[in-house]
Amino acid sequence: MTERLVVIGGDAAGMSAASQARKRRSPDDLNIVAFERGRHVSYSACGIPYLVAGDVEDADDLVARRPEEFRERQHIDLRLDSEVVAIDTDRREVTVRDAIREYHEPFDQLVIATGGEPIRPDVPGGAAVGIYGVQTLDDGVRILEHLDRHTPRRAVVVGGGYIGLEMAEAMIRHGLDVTLVDAAEQPMRTLDPDMGALVAAALEREGVRLRLGERLQGFGSTAGRVSAVHTSAGEIPADVVILGLGTRPNSHLAEAAGITVGETGGIRVDRRLRASADGVWAAGDCVENLHLVSQRPVAVALGTHANKQGRAVGINIGGGYATFPGVVGTAVSKLCADEVARTGLSTAEAEAAGFRTFSVVTESTTRAGYFPGAKKITTKIIAECTTGRFLGAQIVGQEGAAKRIDALAVALWHGMTVEEMTSLDLSYAPPFAPVWDPILIAARKAAEHLSLR
Amino acid sequence: MTERLVVIGGDAAGMSAASQARKRRSPDDLNIVAFERGRHVSYSACGIPYLVAGDVEDADDLVARRPEEFRERQHIDLRLDSEVVAIDTDRREVTVRDAIREYHEPFDQLVIATGGEPIRPDVPGGAAVGIYGVQTLDDGVRILEHLDRHTPRRAVVVGGGYIGLEMAEAMIRHGLDVTLVDAAEQPMRTLDPDMGALVAAALEREGVRLRLGERLQGFGSTAGRVSAVHTSAGEIPADVVILGLGTRPNSHLAEAAGITVGETGGIRVDRRLRASADGVWAAGDCVENLHLVSQRPVAVALGTHANKQGRAVGINIGGGYATFPGVVGTAVSKLCADEVARTGLSTAEAEAAGFRTFSVVTESTTRAGYFPGAKKITTKIIAECTTGRFLGAQIVGQEGAAKRIDALAVALWHGMTVEEMTSLDLSYAPPFAPVWDPILIAARKAAEHLSLR
Repeated sequence: MTERLVVIGGDAAGMSAASQARKRRSPDDLNIVAFERGRHVSYSACGIPYLVAGDVEDADDLVARRPEEFRERQHIDLRLDSEVVAIDTDRREVTVRDAIREYHEPFDQLVIATGGEPIRPDVPGGAAVGIYGVQTLDDGVRILEHLDRHTPRRAVVVGGGYIGLEMAEAMIRHGLDVTLVDAAEQPMRTLDPDMGALVAAALEREGVRLRLGERLQGFGSTAGRVSAVHTSAGEIPADVVILGLGTRPNSHLAEAAGITVGETGGIRVDRRLRASADGVWAAGDCVENLHLVSQRPVAVALGTHANKQGRAVGINIGGGYATFPGVVGTAVSKLCADEVARTGLSTAEAEAAGFRTFSVVTESTTRAGYFPGAKKITTKIIAECTTGRFLGAQIVGQEGAAKRIDALAVALWHGMTVEEMTSLDLSYAPPFAPVWDPILIAARKAAEHLSLR
Repeated sequence: MTERLVVIGGDAAGMSAASQARKRRSPDDLNIVAFERGRHVSYSACGIPYLVAGDVEDADDLVARRPEEFRERQHIDLRLDSEVVAIDTDRREVTVRDAIREYHEPFDQLVIATGGEPIRPDVPGGAAVGIYGVQTLDDGVRILEHLDRHTPRRAVVVGGGYIGLEMAEAMIRHGLDVTLVDAAEQPMRTLDPDMGALVAAALEREGVRLRLGERLQGFGSTAGRVSAVHTSAGEIPADVVILGLGTRPNSHLAEAAGITVGETGGIRVDRRLRASADGVWAAGDCVENLHLVSQRPVAVALGTHANKQGRAVGINIGGGYATFPGVVGTAVSKLCADEVARTGLSTAEAEAAGFRTFSVVTESTTRAGYFPGAKKITTKIIAECTTGRFLGAQIVGQEGAAKRIDALAVALWHGMTVEEMTSLDLSYAPPFAPVWDPILIAARKAAEHLSLR
């Protein structure tokens, strides 16, 4: 008998799961229905700031695969504008609402890929025109339309995380006066304060006005259009406001169905991405992951995890075996000419997880110092006292700096000590690195710090 | 009583050892004498092609530290133009020859850092003016003088390894007609033939004429100046010839002193870099290393290894503990806009070491496909049959491609399988990578290859 697979959510995780399952099981063996409440599937949400900035010309460029490809080539019954509003794990069916009706769809296997939901501030005035999130492709298109139609002069970006920074750059590129507001004392809270200060300096170099340590309290408007952002420190005039306050796992549906949701708000899954109910899988921004360094659950919204998890779910449903062992917290971002990357735990995160830590900061260059185009790179390494176990790293620099985080992420994956890391056989040639790669310099300084104490 | 340390060789390995030992032991405790047969110390030999190309303006820019720094700041008795011609491990002394005299210098500890010696072809005509190696800073200066004085039109580069390719680019940059001769059927023999073909294509795109599979047989000259290169396939007119045939460990002194030299021609050392005689250490291009994947000895001439080894030797002599566990064979090079990198074993090397292998080749982009500046990257992964153990990788691509080899080098260091590598938490953002990093795509394809067989 043909088994029925229902997928909730048509973005990276959901459609990867559907695709992989289809690759391994024919339509005779597995019927696949995927529900997406929006109009688009399988697009790069991470690309939206670059669409707004003008790096990407057309919203369509961000769409990896179109609905017809799934329908025609893969025989996946993809239904757009169709929102799943309930899951019944006993009756093995979901309730679906579209423009016309509400109906039930039965399943044998279910993939929950409901993604993240943007954190919206609970303050007055948020309904004014000109206040935008950066969540969906339509958000990006709407921001561009606003810029085009209203030619705003002053932009306020609320939230100094990755999206906030990328949107600040996008607004600068459109020639706007940009103010960035964050309740923390630094942008990029996922960095240690000293590294965050380098990011703050980079933002200011690019002309972004920083209003740090200020809490958002509301929005002022004139004739229904936003005119100001109110913070704990006063009023900031604004013709357009971008909200980059991050997301949290969208696990409401799962929770309402009695599926276990963890302390992070993400759906709890095992190594194979199985949720607590039989035959139910979850993948993407809606799940919680194991952080392999802290050994604690974390919710990380990143397209790369969503794709890996979706693929693993699809392989498992397809009869294979694939796992998602966890994350080490790697992230990277670009702000005009500056690059920022991190992996593992920050000092605060490590201390909160019970580690006693020390850290070192080193400055070097991305190429041999004498080679044209050598750029500055600052590397911070956080390690455990006494054992020297490597716990985390942060990089701020320019061209060629950030992607170095990957070698550190692999070192972290294997629980290396900083002493062991000093021997790593990293590539060297003058156009690519000094004879001691910045990573080796940082590891060396950390190892020396340990041996001297 | 003050101990006496003698260092033979004033380049990266020798001077790193001397410096590190000094950092840990005062002049009262340790007397350090370093002998260098040339005029320069502590310079970047890897930078010479870039000096010739014009990327680096002045030969002095390649000098990391000047003699006075060692003498005055570190109280190291550095003697230039002083060649050690014999080691006597019983009498604990070396014989030194300088411009004036020959004398003995006693030691308690000895560091042999005699570097590599260029492989020179044993063919007729090699004494003609206009034939240059690329070994010392003076070689680089002499090539530039030749270009300036004789304005040659046609250059022939003999040898298609890293230095040969970099010198071919340097000659192109000077506007010369460049022919590259190699006895192998591909440039970059350390790559698999399919990846070598990509390098050959890149060379041809840059205007380099390739004469592959041709053995060097001699040089023709007119009035003492080189005029042609003779190969097994004929004559190639040449106004200047660059020899880039690689180096081998310069272990003659050690061997003559009865110190064990391995099958690679390099001085055999243990983890701490101790040679076979008591109180004798060796570091840099003159030693042989353990290849951590093949578990066989290899001789690899690279500044990054020389620096690490020199540092470890200095720490050990200084009373600390430091090791050099071995190499995984990582290397990187740039050829105009093209980047080439490798780590681990090639297919031929792996098969020779007893592995049965399979490999996959994948094409991707360095950034999200829709992001401006995304460049092509081709990644090859070689793995062991049945276990899927990752054995080696090769990358050919453009800007942003090559340094990705580092994450692969760390994975190799830990003996990961390709299946394990598919889960690695590598950084993702559109300006830095597609949502599946090229490395993950390659690992995934390799894992799929394994699960399907």
